[in-house]
Amino acid sequence: MTHSIKAIAAAIGAEAVGDLGLTISRASEPADAGPDDLAMAMAPKFQADIPKGRARAALLAPGADWQALGLRAAILAPRGRLAMAGVTALLDPGQHFAPGIHASAVIDPTAEIGDGVSIGPLAVIGARARIGAGSVIGPHCVIGADVALGPGAFLRELVSIGARATIGARFIAQPGVRIGGDGFSFVTPEVSGVEMARATLGDQGETKAQAWLRIHSLGSVTIGDDVEIGANSTVDNGTIRDTFIGSGTKIDSLVQVGHNVRVGTDCLLCAQAGVAGSSEIGNNVVLGGQTGVGDNLIVGDRVIAAGGTKILSNVPEGRVMMGYPAVKMDAFTEAYKAIRRLPRLARDISALKKAVFKDEPTE
Amino acid sequence: MTHSIKAIAAAIGAEAVGDLGLTISRASEPADAGPDDLAMAMAPKFQADIPKGRARAALLAPGADWQALGLRAAILAPRGRLAMAGVTALLDPGQHFAPGIHASAVIDPTAEIGDGVSIGPLAVIGARARIGAGSVIGPHCVIGADVALGPGAFLRELVSIGARATIGARFIAQPGVRIGGDGFSFVTPEVSGVEMARATLGDQGETKAQAWLRIHSLGSVTIGDDVEIGANSTVDNGTIRDTFIGSGTKIDSLVQVGHNVRVGTDCLLCAQAGVAGSSEIGNNVVLGGQTGVGDNLIVGDRVIAAGGTKILSNVPEGRVMMGYPAVKMDAFTEAYKAIRRLPRLARDISALKKAVFKDEPTE
Amino acid sequence: MTHSIKAIAAAIGAEAVGDLGLTISRASEPADAGPDDLAMAMAPKFQADIPKGRARAALLAPGADWQALGLRAAILAPRGRLAMAGVTALLDPGQHFAPGIHASAVIDPTAEIGDGVSIGPLAVIGARARIGAGSVIGPHCVIGADVALGPGAFLRELVSIGARATIGARFIAQPGVRIGGDGFSFVTPEVSGVEMARATLGDQGETKAQAWLRIHSLGSVTIGDDVEIGANSTVDNGTIRDTFIGSGTKIDSLVQVGHNVRVGTDCLLCAQAGVAGSSEIGNNVVLGGQTGVGDNLIVGDRVIAAGGTKILSNVPEGRVMMGYPAVKMDAFTEAYKAIRRLPRLARDISALKKAVFKDEPTE
Repeated sequence: MTHSIKAIAAAIGAEAVGDLGLTISRASEPADAGPDDLAMAMAPKFQADIPKGRARAALLAPGADWQALGLRAAILAPRGRLAMAGVTALLDPGQHFAPGIHASAVIDPTAEIGDGVSIGPLAVIGARARIGAGSVIGPHCVIGADVALGPGAFLRELVSIGARATIGARFIAQPGVRIGGDGFSFVTPEVSGVEMARATLGDQGETKAQAWLRIHSLGSVTIGDDVEIGANSTVDNGTIRDTFIGSGTKIDSLVQVGHNVRVGTDCLLCAQAGVAGSSEIGNNVVLGGQTGVGDNLIVGDRVIAAGGTKILSNVPEGRVMMGYPAVKMDAFTEAYKAIRRLPRLARDISALKKAVFKDEPTE
Repeated sequence: MTHSIKAIAAAIGAEAVGDLGLTISRASEPADAGPDDLAMAMAPKFQADIPKGRARAALLAPGADWQALGLRAAILAPRGRLAMAGVTALLDPGQHFAPGIHASAVIDPTAEIGDGVSIGPLAVIGARARIGAGSVIGPHCVIGADVALGPGAFLRELVSIGARATIGARFIAQPGVRIGGDGFSFVTPEVSGVEMARATLGDQGETKAQAWLRIHSLGSVTIGDDVEIGANSTVDNGTIRDTFIGSGTKIDSLVQVGHNVRVGTDCLLCAQAGVAGSSEIGNNVVLGGQTGVGDNLIVGDRVIAAGGTKILSNVPEGRVMMGYPAVKMDAFTEAYKAIRRLPRLARDISALKKAVFKDEPTE
Repeated sequence: MTHSIKAIAAAIGAEAVGDLGLTISRASEPADAGPDDLAMAMAPKFQADIPKGRARAALLAPGADWQALGLRAAILAPRGRLAMAGVTALLDPGQHFAPGIHASAVIDPTAEIGDGVSIGPLAVIGARARIGAGSVIGPHCVIGADVALGPGAFLRELVSIGARATIGARFIAQPGVRIGGDGFSFVTPEVSGVEMARATLGDQGETKAQAWLRIHSLGSVTIGDDVEIGANSTVDNGTIRDTFIGSGTKIDSLVQVGHNVRVGTDCLLCAQAGVAGSSEIGNNVVLGGQTGVGDNLIVGDRVIAAGGTKILSNVPEGRVMMGYPAVKMDAFTEAYKAIRRLPRLARDISALKKAVFKDEPTE
């Protein structure tokens, strides 16, 4: 399928210049581009690669001298990554999942399948599950009993959704997503060493060894509209109420969302981040890769955590955090610089001790 | 299904007061509770929410003035989370997996299926596998050749168990658990940079670039009784002997247990924790979320590691650990406070240098 | 199946001594060994265990007094783990996946299946996928449309490969591997708080809350020859070009490789490591367990990162790194020691202040 420069520019709301009828069939990095490709060169450093390839058209920043780059047409977009969103949506070739319901799928007769739903080979749909209109259920997906999945969902292969989950419109799940595993919640008959160590900040005392009793998950998972979850990520069931993920939130690969957690709207949880049980994440929060949030904490709206941050106490709204334990990023940077200066400080102190106390300098 | 207050109290061994014949059908958070719900309000802060809902019965701490809260009945439990274990076990609605063996399951004729086993749609059971009586094998599970799975197992959807694994009674596996992937074990023909860097603590010398040769996993995985493993967690095969997980140990989501690891009894491994190859974890150990344990280490009985801890050397029994590298939690706290005071120390040193040496103050 | 000592020694290129015709059927740890087992005792500490078992033959370091250990035969190997590679390859009993194509597999008629390929129960092969000769596709694998998988692949159960991925020869994927989930790439219509915080190193300013627009992944994944990927690991699609993993690279369990990442040849990425979008990892790089690499970074050839390292800036080739943020391991060690000495330094400063300024000592 091909698209004219004019049509692409119109679709993404950008200006087009040159031969607007020129058609392209895919997007490429500038050096790799063939004559039917749109070279993606929004950043000036990529413009220099255009002559290395054979592109006749490119996506450029406004003001770029497209003719000097040897192009016949260009699309000029002031915010490059925003233009990327539009162009890639237009050119996405997709997974080629076949329309319709594959004969090998195992669908409970009480399930309600909306109009235009496609269900891939060997998918399993449980009793009373409701699949919203236009949804695509990939091969080998398992949808549990009483699940309500909104319209326009796109589930890649091998996704599972546990019983009673409720999911809004346009849900996207990458391969291997696990919604609705039971929460990790155990208790000892008597006070445990962990409870003691938390209370004392480090001393578990003489608590005896005990076995763990299971607290079952009676809650499920509720997810808003326009949520996307990455490959092999896990969202656990709540204990009494549902674990909750707000509309517009995007979750990367291998992320863990624990039982009872509430994640607000329009958050980003980057790869391998984890949020422990019963914590609340506000709206528009960004957790960098491998960030951890302890249990029963509150992370305010608009908080940003750099990659690797371990949040061990509540964070007020708007903070930019870093470190283990997490502190404000500028405090982290100051402490880091101070640590780097420590050997010099130690030498200064030795010299002072020698001068003041007539000490021999220490190491 | 409904339960009387009297029956619930008896089942969990707690005291009941008020109208003991009142029946409830599910548990709820107090503010959400309807008239047929048991409001879960063991902590005082939740009691205040009871009037916001419509509960007629609640689970409360002993001494709570249940009549003043407008309730008709109450269950009084001295250890709230312990009562939760009992109540949630009673009220768990489960996944509605159908009994019996689904016609679409692919079961090797040499497999031995115990009495009362249910096997879900599209599950695969390998040659000579033995499935203990009363086990539930969820949809799309894959049980390898020669696996021995004890009685009363409950495997959610899409769980896999590799060939020759041996698993005790009442095993619970959440969706996507992977038992028996091969261990990650490679060797270079000559000494590698990693070996040099470990020996010298940081200098890999002039070792040349080499390819990695695979050490195959001849061992499998042995798991005791009453073990639970969380969604998408992985337990790798041993190299010569089996990787081992002791009875009563509970493992959360996205946890990695490497080859040859031995985990003792009644441990908790929280989400995204990882234990590298050949390490030994004692009994009653708790590893917080995102904890890492390096390879070939020994972690003693009753050790507790706070979330995010990176254990890089052996840990004696009973220690409460934190940090990267892990130290005792009180040492971590002391170091952390000292780092926060560093800018002030640096200013003190500048002032001293000026006074003693007549220096200009440094930054 | 049994092997003579002579045959094993020849296969791994090592010296054999004693009764070369003695046959063994498996490898064991010395204390567990039966009379038909080869005791694996390359390290001196394991030799002492030989008399605890019943081994008649062992794999030993050169110079070991095998007769004094009561053995009838021995294989003497100067580099123990290298010998392990050879012995374990010979004795690996495998997964017992049946040869041929299982009747329950769902194979698109346009797929090209090479000679001698075996495809397990309930596997799904998409349109125009090409499966190289001699490959083994495990039960429940899902191979997407237009995938090119080289010869000799071995895919364990429940592996998925997204559309258009290109994979070289002898690929090994452990259970639950996810190749080709879409990359995690989103943009706000206007400048976001994250962009501001990155530019200012901590201040997100007054940016307003915005929803995230999706940047689709048009690229796929390209993987070289002799690559192995561990259980439940994820490799995401590239945005415009393919995400790339070089030949000979080995990836452990629960590792995340983000969109556009380039990993060189012969790298090791240990368990739960993560590489964020668009970063480049050189050749022969080793990332320890739970290592994180930020986005858009360059990690040079032969870099070694200790477990838990968080790499937040470019790393020159050959460096051995540790810490958060990552620094050279010797700098990390020096800083760590300095932090441990901080309480003493603080006391020294108090004493100096008292002596110089006649201050009361501070805490």
